[in-house]
Amino acid sequence: MKALVYHGPGSKAWEDVPDATVQEPTDVVVRVETTTICGTDLHILHGDVAAVTDGRILGHEAVGTVTAVGDAVRGFAVGDRVLVPAITKCGRCEYCQRGMPSHCQTVGGIGWIFGHLIDGTQAELVRVPYADTSLYAVPEGLTDEQVIFLADSLPTGYEVGVLAGRVRPGDTVAVVGAGAVGLAAVLTTGLWGASRVIAVDTNKFRLQKALEFGATDVVEVGPGTVEAVKALTDGLGVDVAIEAVGYPETLRTTAALVRPGGRIANIGVHGVPVELPMQEMWIQNVTLTMGLVDTVSIPTLLKMVAGGRIPAEKMGTHSFTFDQLDEAYDVFGNAAAHEALKVVITPS
Amino acid sequence: MKALVYHGPGSKAWEDVPDATVQEPTDVVVRVETTTICGTDLHILHGDVAAVTDGRILGHEAVGTVTAVGDAVRGFAVGDRVLVPAITKCGRCEYCQRGMPSHCQTVGGIGWIFGHLIDGTQAELVRVPYADTSLYAVPEGLTDEQVIFLADSLPTGYEVGVLAGRVRPGDTVAVVGAGAVGLAAVLTTGLWGASRVIAVDTNKFRLQKALEFGATDVVEVGPGTVEAVKALTDGLGVDVAIEAVGYPETLRTTAALVRPGGRIANIGVHGVPVELPMQEMWIQNVTLTMGLVDTVSIPTLLKMVAGGRIPAEKMGTHSFTFDQLDEAYDVFGNAAAHEALKVVITPS
Repeated sequence: MKALVYHGPGSKAWEDVPDATVQEPTDVVVRVETTTICGTDLHILHGDVAAVTDGRILGHEAVGTVTAVGDAVRGFAVGDRVLVPAITKCGRCEYCQRGMPSHCQTVGGIGWIFGHLIDGTQAELVRVPYADTSLYAVPEGLTDEQVIFLADSLPTGYEVGVLAGRVRPGDTVAVVGAGAVGLAAVLTTGLWGASRVIAVDTNKFRLQKALEFGATDVVEVGPGTVEAVKALTDGLGVDVAIEAVGYPETLRTTAALVRPGGRIANIGVHGVPVELPMQEMWIQNVTLTMGLVDTVSIPTLLKMVAGGRIPAEKMGTHSFTFDQLDEAYDVFGNAAAHEALKVVITPS
Repeated sequence: MKALVYHGPGSKAWEDVPDATVQEPTDVVVRVETTTICGTDLHILHGDVAAVTDGRILGHEAVGTVTAVGDAVRGFAVGDRVLVPAITKCGRCEYCQRGMPSHCQTVGGIGWIFGHLIDGTQAELVRVPYADTSLYAVPEGLTDEQVIFLADSLPTGYEVGVLAGRVRPGDTVAVVGAGAVGLAAVLTTGLWGASRVIAVDTNKFRLQKALEFGATDVVEVGPGTVEAVKALTDGLGVDVAIEAVGYPETLRTTAALVRPGGRIANIGVHGVPVELPMQEMWIQNVTLTMGLVDTVSIPTLLKMVAGGRIPAEKMGTHSFTFDQLDEAYDVFGNAAAHEALKVVITPS
């Protein structure tokens, strides 16, 4: 089969590799029909994720069809159309039983293993461990484009942003960073009855998308960002501020947007320590959450997509085929300049 | 009347001042029969709290008797024995109605006003605004020593530590800093069914007290603190880690004690920014909370004291009279050296 193989920082190639096969009785093999690229893949290519070594097939999101099934698999059969999510989970360990498979102890203490600790989904075939507890059947009538972003970016914005931030009816919400994951938070915050959803970004295209995705207000980043957001509330700030960028400065800005008693939900992937003004924050009764997606909201999100409540396919702005993967990475790696959110990648 | 008056950094005096009087119909005046000193009073004397200016009477905790009542007061009468808590609350604003009077908008956006924005309780008499919604009647049969620490340190440890940290049955809990507030967390964590309560401090006396107050284990701070605490769990760390010190280093240590999915409850009053290792923390699904006490748990705590479940009086290790206030500050300001937790101060 062909796959996109990582060869150290800055180096990758679409090349021939041995076919993915069933190795454990709980495995299935899936023929990848749609995949995409995540910001994490860019981090890997920058050499930021030490656990990813030369020879690893990249990617952790796919829609496809089951082509082989291990003896212990009961929930899936050859020919089933499935969503391969970013998180692999045993379903048995303490973390899986508590609904936090992002820390599945069985698969390595971290549920994100595709394109990280095992071979990933940017390939013609992918081996899926613990298939019964990890895969999701794609409901009849939904297209690949409607489902693919439920593998990671949509549940990330929803779980790590909206759910962790405990958005409640009437809340004012700010989302700092209107890339794919920030927009996923914008797209799903309204479901919880937010009275105001304020998108904050440097990029006009993304702010325009935020309005299309349900933001009630947008604020272009500048010297008066914090004041502009507070002016849209009662002057005290928002109830929930969601960070979807991952830089020290953006986390501090996000923290500054929150009113006393508010919640700061960090989605951003941080590469360096962050200095927080605890001398001002300690007295504010604020909560700061952070984490990796569990993907346990996928069944909910599938129902919302099927019901027409979440236009997930709108996240896909550019399409490529497997042999255009280099171009796809270039476009996604400079997403703002290309007015790109997520890319859709198919075999041909 | 006599009162302890602040005269700028490092300077205070027990001196004659005009009697406290009813100024608004919602006020009462209380004759102070027992008061104490809080770490915040020390911060003020160090000049750390700019809002406290020359001439302010210090203190925000008292037990006493009502001596005068404003026309609008309905719940209290002259002669009633009351607890004056650290937080003053109107009961009407959005924050009060949501149970977060620490940010009462009516009294100034911050519920802590005694010895801060108005005159305080280290005095023979104290004026209490919004008395109906702020004061608590002292139940029959309870001594001043049993009740005085419910004005601030006990609810702080309980609300900002145990409740904010969402301690649940079976949880492992670490409390970093076994001073009065940390010990208040130790004293009340067990009520929520923690399976293990680990006190962490540099001071042997405090660790001994922690064991008396319900800690199951103690760890003396040293190079292997984090490993020692993790060894008392399954190796992953505790479910809830409570910080009751207020230094960057202690908050980082506290954060390092928590397992994936755990909660970090900061009680410490911070004076400087804190650099957090977000590059390690973002993926851990942890929650960091912080805040000022609301004192809304006082009715609960009064019942627990009356029922013999919380030996609150054990927090008082040293007693002084008003004319010994200088000595009381010296002892409390060097609490660890004096093997002091809280001081009890009475008129004579």
